[in-house]
Amino acid sequence: MRATVLESPGQIVLHDVPDPRIELPTDAVVRVVASCICGSDLWGYRGIAQDRGPSRTGHEFVGVIEEIGADVRTVKVGDFVIAPFCISDGTCENCRNGVHTSCLHGGYWGSTDLPAATADAAQGEAVRVPLADGTLVGLPEQPGAEQVPGLLTLSDVMGTGHHAALAAGVTRGSTVVVVGDGAVGLCGVIAALRLGAEQVVAMSRHASRQALAREFGATAVVAERGDEGVARVKELFGGIGPDAVMECVGTKESMQQALDSVRPGGTVGFVGLPYGAELPIRQMFSENKGVRGGVASVRGYIDELLPDVLSGAIDPGRVFDVTLPLADVAEGYRAMDRREAIKVLLRP
Amino acid sequence: MRATVLESPGQIVLHDVPDPRIELPTDAVVRVVASCICGSDLWGYRGIAQDRGPSRTGHEFVGVIEEIGADVRTVKVGDFVIAPFCISDGTCENCRNGVHTSCLHGGYWGSTDLPAATADAAQGEAVRVPLADGTLVGLPEQPGAEQVPGLLTLSDVMGTGHHAALAAGVTRGSTVVVVGDGAVGLCGVIAALRLGAEQVVAMSRHASRQALAREFGATAVVAERGDEGVARVKELFGGIGPDAVMECVGTKESMQQALDSVRPGGTVGFVGLPYGAELPIRQMFSENKGVRGGVASVRGYIDELLPDVLSGAIDPGRVFDVTLPLADVAEGYRAMDRREAIKVLLRP
Repeated sequence: MRATVLESPGQIVLHDVPDPRIELPTDAVVRVVASCICGSDLWGYRGIAQDRGPSRTGHEFVGVIEEIGADVRTVKVGDFVIAPFCISDGTCENCRNGVHTSCLHGGYWGSTDLPAATADAAQGEAVRVPLADGTLVGLPEQPGAEQVPGLLTLSDVMGTGHHAALAAGVTRGSTVVVVGDGAVGLCGVIAALRLGAEQVVAMSRHASRQALAREFGATAVVAERGDEGVARVKELFGGIGPDAVMECVGTKESMQQALDSVRPGGTVGFVGLPYGAELPIRQMFSENKGVRGGVASVRGYIDELLPDVLSGAIDPGRVFDVTLPLADVAEGYRAMDRREAIKVLLRP
Repeated sequence: MRATVLESPGQIVLHDVPDPRIELPTDAVVRVVASCICGSDLWGYRGIAQDRGPSRTGHEFVGVIEEIGADVRTVKVGDFVIAPFCISDGTCENCRNGVHTSCLHGGYWGSTDLPAATADAAQGEAVRVPLADGTLVGLPEQPGAEQVPGLLTLSDVMGTGHHAALAAGVTRGSTVVVVGDGAVGLCGVIAALRLGAEQVVAMSRHASRQALAREFGATAVVAERGDEGVARVKELFGGIGPDAVMECVGTKESMQQALDSVRPGGTVGFVGLPYGAELPIRQMFSENKGVRGGVASVRGYIDELLPDVLSGAIDPGRVFDVTLPLADVAEGYRAMDRREAIKVLLRP
């Protein structure tokens, strides 16, 4: 089959690779219906993340089960499944606490340190799924083609936006600012409103992203950044700032903006991969500003979010503004890198 | 009157100072019944905090109102009052959010940048209290002498322990570790159990503090520190650590121990003044370990905690293991600095 490989920074290519097969009785093999490119894929593409040598890429996909191992119980051949960006057994202490990303036996797509075999990654034609019972969520019936993008967001960005909102303590009546207008930030707007936030301000300088944030329900948009952005946000929220800030970028500047914006006693929920971000503990202490979040346990959120996606109550699939065949994966990375695309969907 | 002054690091002396008087119609003058020495007073005493030149010291006291300004409504002459360690108006946006420590018009005892006049500090015979309506909590009747130590802990350490527990997300059934066996950590044990924690482990190497932690209800004591301490704690909690860690010290080592100890998805509630502490954001991200807390808004907690102190349901006053006349304040600082005393109560 074909799958994408990051050869070196900037060099993303489609390769012929071995077909996945059942290697353990807890495995499944999934034929990919759609995968996509994540903002976090760009860290490696840009050469910012540690160079691991050539590596398989992608960690978000939906597809149809082709084959299952002898011990797989919760999904069956032919099921349409959502695969979260993290592999988990669903039974260990951490999974039972809802922190599937810290599964004692799990791991990440494309990783080579998983039990017994190299794991495939998501940007390919098919994937061997370890710990299929814990990892995959099967749908009761085949979805319509128009539902696929929304379902695909449950692999990562919609669940991650939801995680940011929960981590920031968003609840009914909350006032919220979302830092970051990527797919996660935009899904974060949906998530905050879904949890009952009264006001949700999106920080964005890009017209198309501002427009989508407003369509998702953002009550205001702030284009300014840094001190000006903070001043504008405080002005919108009684001079002291909002109850909650969702930090969906992961840089030093975005984290500081989040901490400066949130009101005393408020919480920053952060889900941006922190490259270079720092936490000013004295400021957090003196102003009682909490920081919670991290790599989102999206597996645990699918049950809650899926009905809203299937019913159309929320429409996170709209973050995909470019769809490409897998063969054009390099073009997809270029578009994301240049911020010409919010998020690129890939069809094998 | 007489009040203590920190002349320079290590030099704490009792001075004759001007008697406090009403300077604004919102002031009260309180005759001190008891004050005390705080772990945080030692930062200046040890020369670790920025040297501000000679300064009045102490921020915890209870007493009886001698005089009130024309606009004071909620307390009256003769009332026994508890003064939190922070001055607040009780009406601004931040106070209404329960973050009195970020009061838009408040400040700290001994500070000279408060409205209109120099503020007294607590280690003296009397105190001018600005914003008396917002700051002071009056009791319905005069307490017995034996109740004074417990009431005095509501000025700071009991409320701060409660804040650590809330910030760490302690709730019914929580598993909890308390890092720090000072008065705040010991009150934190009381607070966690009071909120329904199922297990509360106190980390302490000092026999007398271990004993008090157990008397307060700690279910176990861990004497090890660093990696050994973390390993012991994980062992006690299913190999992954407790739901919540209350960080009541404020050093780099204690914060790291707290973060290493808490389970993935758990929260560190921190109330130790962070001198040199740092936050490892990558670890927080990958393990979903949150950090919340800061300078405790004890004013907001007095209403909730006072009935339990008056009824004897909790007995935080036991953290005072040394009582001295104000004239011996220097001896009190020495005893605290050498950790010979857990907490020193001063009687004018």
